[in-house]
Amino acid sequence: MTPSEIIDKMYNNDPFSQWLGLERVEEGAGFCVLKLTVRKEMLNGFSIAHGGITYALADSALAFAANAHGRKCVSVETSISHVQPVMEGDVLTTSVEEVSLTNRIGIYHITVSNQHDVDVAVFKGSVYRRSESWE
Amino acid sequence: MTPSEIIDKMYNNDPFSQWLGLERVEEGAGFCVLKLTVRKEMLNGFSIAHGGITYALADSALAFAANAHGRKCVSVETSISHVQPVMEGDVLTTSVEEVSLTNRIGIYHITVSNQHDVDVAVFKGSVYRRSESWE
Amino acid sequence: MTPSEIIDKMYNNDPFSQWLGLERVEEGAGFCVLKLTVRKEMLNGFSIAHGGITYALADSALAFAANAHGRKCVSVETSISHVQPVMEGDVLTTSVEEVSLTNRIGIYHITVSNQHDVDVAVFKGSVYRRSESWE
Amino acid sequence: MTPSEIIDKMYNNDPFSQWLGLERVEEGAGFCVLKLTVRKEMLNGFSIAHGGITYALADSALAFAANAHGRKCVSVETSISHVQPVMEGDVLTTSVEEVSLTNRIGIYHITVSNQHDVDVAVFKGSVYRRSESWE
Repeated sequence: MTPSEIIDKMYNNDPFSQWLGLERVEEGAGFCVLKLTVRKEMLNGFSIAHGGITYALADSALAFAANAHGRKCVSVETSISHVQPVMEGDVLTTSVEEVSLTNRIGIYHITVSNQHDVDVAVFKGSVYRRSESWE
Repeated sequence: MTPSEIIDKMYNNDPFSQWLGLERVEEGAGFCVLKLTVRKEMLNGFSIAHGGITYALADSALAFAANAHGRKCVSVETSISHVQPVMEGDVLTTSVEEVSLTNRIGIYHITVSNQHDVDVAVFKGSVYRRSESWE
Repeated sequence: MTPSEIIDKMYNNDPFSQWLGLERVEEGAGFCVLKLTVRKEMLNGFSIAHGGITYALADSALAFAANAHGRKCVSVETSISHVQPVMEGDVLTTSVEEVSLTNRIGIYHITVSNQHDVDVAVFKGSVYRRSESWE
Repeated sequence: MTPSEIIDKMYNNDPFSQWLGLERVEEGAGFCVLKLTVRKEMLNGFSIAHGGITYALADSALAFAANAHGRKCVSVETSISHVQPVMEGDVLTTSVEEVSLTNRIGIYHITVSNQHDVDVAVFKGSVYRRSESWE
């Protein structure tokens, strides 16, 4: 299967991604550009986006990028720092860097930035790569 | 303000918490028990809960527990490991342990477990405690 | 092999552990109590222990505890927060909690405390468990 | 004080850095290139460098880079993934990227590579920036 066929399989019939309104801009083995527009129902009591929204976006990008190599991956550990507030109407974009890939473990840095090219979150994810392939 | 008054202020008018259906079970300075029932629209394409749902639950518990001391807190870094799959209908509960509290920094371990008392996620959060108080 | 035989194999002929002066107090499958006395040459320019000393202690405890189950483990990701300063002459002790253990991944919380029972560091480690056993 | 004067103050009379044999190659506000040559006494029982050595190198680079801006910094949380084994005689070099800097918090990605330009560890550090300046 191609990277896009694998991501199709992960993304289609995914109710939470639909709710988030994830838009797939670009993708391939080890990388993935996703977009999300922040809606009112994604805000917390301070009128900024809940940290769970930015995390969900980055975590989806991690899953798509890592699995697109063709081997099934599960995340081992993910961390995120929310460095700038995210507002209603902001358009967030992921940028994925594969910083290490060995037989069993992949490590990814994912930056989430807004429409002004300001980084709003810094995410790091480690995945375990199973032996099983996508097919 | 009491811990519950502070959390009221954070929780009320919070559209994403409403959407998540967060239920406040118990709370105080440095701790907080939150409950969430997993609905169909929270699932990913594999019919298990998206990692963003569990993260959002734990991140809310972190914010409530840390701010309930009375000083305004912002998270510096959060990490989560998803250790068991979460299914539709599962009822998730947070358990917060304040592992360190100094003048400027608080560190929290938060475990998310399901209705069978099985841990599904292990979360760690560090917050920066501002000088400003809730009032 | 028993847990102690496995740890013997890891610990013996280990030049850096000798230099650190690690003392094995208690050990078993999934846990391990190590002790270290802070010497002058372990300090930084501010006369407190370098963060690398506390990390090395906790990382050794992680390796011993995880491998003692009998399967060979490699660490995937480790994080540490240094929450209180460590002084020359302090006696540091590790306390290991195995927070999750699945077929492939183990997650551990390790607290490092001093002789006054004050926690000085909070460590979290994830390991990948290889198929190969110790023998 | 200039960045190098600040790092002088941190590095001089630092017994553990002397023991490590840290060599300062380049430095400035927010970055720092350090070198370390792996000696026999830094190895573990498997004849590869103990994780504490690579951590200590990266943690020193974090401290130097963050403090060189002129404000006193303390680390809040650091994480490291050891992605390739480090051997006796290897020459390790740090590469620091300041990924976020706000009034109170700085976030840094530090890569440690060997003499063959192979990355051996991926480190992330968050620091709290105190109001107090170096002088």
